[in-house]
Amino acid sequence: MTASAQIGVTGLAVMGRNLARNFARGGCTVALHNRTEARTRELVEEFGDEGDFVPTTSAREFVAALRRPRCLVVMVKAGGPTDAVLEEFAGLLEPGDVIVDGGNAHFADTRRREAALRERGIHFAGTGISGGEEGALLGPSIMPGGSAEAYEVLGPLLERIAARAPDGAPCAAHIGPDGAGHFVKMVHNGIEYADMQLIAEAYDLLRKVAGRRPAEIAEIFRGWNRGRLDSYLIEITAQVLTHTDADTGLPFVDVVADRAEQKGTGRWTVQTALDLGVPVPGIAQAVFARSQSGHTGLRQAAAALPGPGAEPLPEAEADRFAEQVEQALYASKVISYAQGWDMIRAGSEEFGWGIDLSRVAAIWRAGCIIRAAFLDRIRASFAERPGLPTLLADPEFARELGGAQGAWRRIAAASARHGVPTPGISGALAYYDGLRAEHLPAALTQAQRDYFGAHTYRRRDREGTFHTRWGGDRAEVRTDQG
Amino acid sequence: MTASAQIGVTGLAVMGRNLARNFARGGCTVALHNRTEARTRELVEEFGDEGDFVPTTSAREFVAALRRPRCLVVMVKAGGPTDAVLEEFAGLLEPGDVIVDGGNAHFADTRRREAALRERGIHFAGTGISGGEEGALLGPSIMPGGSAEAYEVLGPLLERIAARAPDGAPCAAHIGPDGAGHFVKMVHNGIEYADMQLIAEAYDLLRKVAGRRPAEIAEIFRGWNRGRLDSYLIEITAQVLTHTDADTGLPFVDVVADRAEQKGTGRWTVQTALDLGVPVPGIAQAVFARSQSGHTGLRQAAAALPGPGAEPLPEAEADRFAEQVEQALYASKVISYAQGWDMIRAGSEEFGWGIDLSRVAAIWRAGCIIRAAFLDRIRASFAERPGLPTLLADPEFARELGGAQGAWRRIAAASARHGVPTPGISGALAYYDGLRAEHLPAALTQAQRDYFGAHTYRRRDREGTFHTRWGGDRAEVRTDQG
Repeated sequence: MTASAQIGVTGLAVMGRNLARNFARGGCTVALHNRTEARTRELVEEFGDEGDFVPTTSAREFVAALRRPRCLVVMVKAGGPTDAVLEEFAGLLEPGDVIVDGGNAHFADTRRREAALRERGIHFAGTGISGGEEGALLGPSIMPGGSAEAYEVLGPLLERIAARAPDGAPCAAHIGPDGAGHFVKMVHNGIEYADMQLIAEAYDLLRKVAGRRPAEIAEIFRGWNRGRLDSYLIEITAQVLTHTDADTGLPFVDVVADRAEQKGTGRWTVQTALDLGVPVPGIAQAVFARSQSGHTGLRQAAAALPGPGAEPLPEAEADRFAEQVEQALYASKVISYAQGWDMIRAGSEEFGWGIDLSRVAAIWRAGCIIRAAFLDRIRASFAERPGLPTLLADPEFARELGGAQGAWRRIAAASARHGVPTPGISGALAYYDGLRAEHLPAALTQAQRDYFGAHTYRRRDREGTFHTRWGGDRAEVRTDQG
Repeated sequence: MTASAQIGVTGLAVMGRNLARNFARGGCTVALHNRTEARTRELVEEFGDEGDFVPTTSAREFVAALRRPRCLVVMVKAGGPTDAVLEEFAGLLEPGDVIVDGGNAHFADTRRREAALRERGIHFAGTGISGGEEGALLGPSIMPGGSAEAYEVLGPLLERIAARAPDGAPCAAHIGPDGAGHFVKMVHNGIEYADMQLIAEAYDLLRKVAGRRPAEIAEIFRGWNRGRLDSYLIEITAQVLTHTDADTGLPFVDVVADRAEQKGTGRWTVQTALDLGVPVPGIAQAVFARSQSGHTGLRQAAAALPGPGAEPLPEAEADRFAEQVEQALYASKVISYAQGWDMIRAGSEEFGWGIDLSRVAAIWRAGCIIRAAFLDRIRASFAERPGLPTLLADPEFARELGGAQGAWRRIAAASARHGVPTPGISGALAYYDGLRAEHLPAALTQAQRDYFGAHTYRRRDREGTFHTRWGGDRAEVRTDQG
């Protein structure tokens, strides 16, 4: 077999198949491999005329079909299956070759694998790919980690198949060493959870407080999509809310069971944020809201708990209310994204990745699930001020939050009064008020910790750590000196 | 050396020393051991007249001083130091002996250690101990895990030194196999985080919205402590708020830096809850509020963000407001505890521990940091209804929540309007409204997931999983049939 292929894809389920087709349609010669041959044959039979495919029937043949340095993309299940495939291929590759893991691996696994393969001279690029099946085929957002040398080989190929931002730039860029790509993809998904939760709350408020029907809410979302909320998720919300169930004639959203599922990346994001000490309550509330929705037993047991019984708003106030919901949604979205970027910065510092915060926003402008006009503003913000400590300190975002806060507060208050759960919107407001507070009651918490556990405290007025002898004479002793 | 001691304590830092003294004062003969001998000597010199101590200078001598089956308590740092000590002693013990780990180990480590020692015939009882230094000496709440055989040896000794509930029952009881004790202690600490956060928010509201001074707030807390909120944490809050800083003459709480620290068990609780799929937003918000308070850089960058500039309430309304804060605090506390017990149930099911939910409440009635009158009601609730799916379904708690909800909603709304961050109180209300909701917007979330990722959905009106061909003819296909 001639080594003719620029890239290979092993694992030809829907994501792998669509990526392989994307490479071929972009002009690459693509070697194909799958554990069961049938899938490889099917791909070539169905889509063979889209480009140059080299179907292979064994790992050895697959590797032999690749030009050097070889570049192969693994698209198999995260966890054990990925380890098994890596082990198999590592034995067939040579120093300088590049393995891309395009699955949803945990970044800690990616770090482990990268270190193990590096010892054998093989580059391992753990790569986040967002955009779902359609994105894989038509242009995803691609977040490769791994060495700079790996990106030299891989980058041009990925940039060819990636989505294009409105300014024409490809939505693929080197994120940083080892686990950086999968870490950033994980945070992308965490932000996606928060975004979806906020949209769900906005919908719920329009429905239950403003008394709007799904088709009317779809129209409101379409309007928002022409403004600063312009994004894929707002667009598909309008699509979903417009859709009518063929069987029942009811709004589609009313026939879907209200139990949201999850596959794990949101949970990983929160767990990792806790390890890093970064507050991401917006993402956590979204993960918990999903799991709460799925606890049928708890919900049934609690169904009889009394609510406020507030009536929907009178028609005259409903339009004004909808405008306030837009303000609350937008402000809460800015908060979630700020938390996401805080986390990327913290991860980058913890693991020494040197991630360019502006570049992350740039490659999320198209192709991925959270793509939005908004991301170009985040890109510009970090490009102009690379040391920006939080997105909330960006003058324009700060101005917008200041403008939105009145409406945001009214919406949080209305949701409490009307009994509509808005953990995302209300939590984002609490985060905002917590961050800007001159004095937090954390002083009381810290004093309590000293009282019951002698955990010591710091003072506002001078350096050092101190303990008060609460059980004795209540004198203060300095604890950080001999 | 005669094997005269009923129990031994190794690791004589303050917790170990106080536990050893507690055993001796209770009439046990206590063998003592510490890596550096000086600490052992000091204990005997200072407190030797409190009871029967057998100081030893080597691990071998320590083990030889113990009656069979030997029972020794390890009080060293969690992590590596614990493993090292266990390895050392395991080699010196015999089948049937019992090692107690009284440190704050992660329950997963305890499971691993228990399995390893079980192979060698040694019982390992990972044991949560709450109550701080003072509790260790005067009577802690004790949560032993491990085998029933281990508890036969250990139980009578622990019950002798434990705190006593108001009805005289010792606050020590067998929790369940392997990691059950440390798991329950972890959840105790998670609930403690949530409790402290709620108290901090109540204080902040009284200060910033009702315009009360710390000494006045102390008085309000003292009043609450005579009602249904009667608890150690409310009591020490009043103590802290009464205290004046000797240096400055200012209220003590105003000289303490408002950055709350944490040692990790709150974080573990949330991470574990995420793994178990149990929503514990009350604990998560508390952990995040602490980490937010400590992010000085973020807070400085966000300090200029605008707030609502609402004035404190007029004096005439302040007393009524304080009553409403009590309602909001109490209702939110019930929610946090409900989440904690949900988590204990889920852990017990996941790991097959068979934890008695009523017993957990019983042994937290005294000795531990969250001790409160309230816990006897939780004990009674689960004793009467062992299958209670959530504390919120208990008729009396449900009635109280129904009674509190009006005030609770007003407080959540007021905090939004006044710009006082109440992630705990507002989040608890959102959890309440989410759990009792007949329709959650999770239906929209699930529909979006189907739209962009073909993740499928269930329907309200019939069984099965379905997918809508969003990119095509928008027909619905059933996905769980061939």
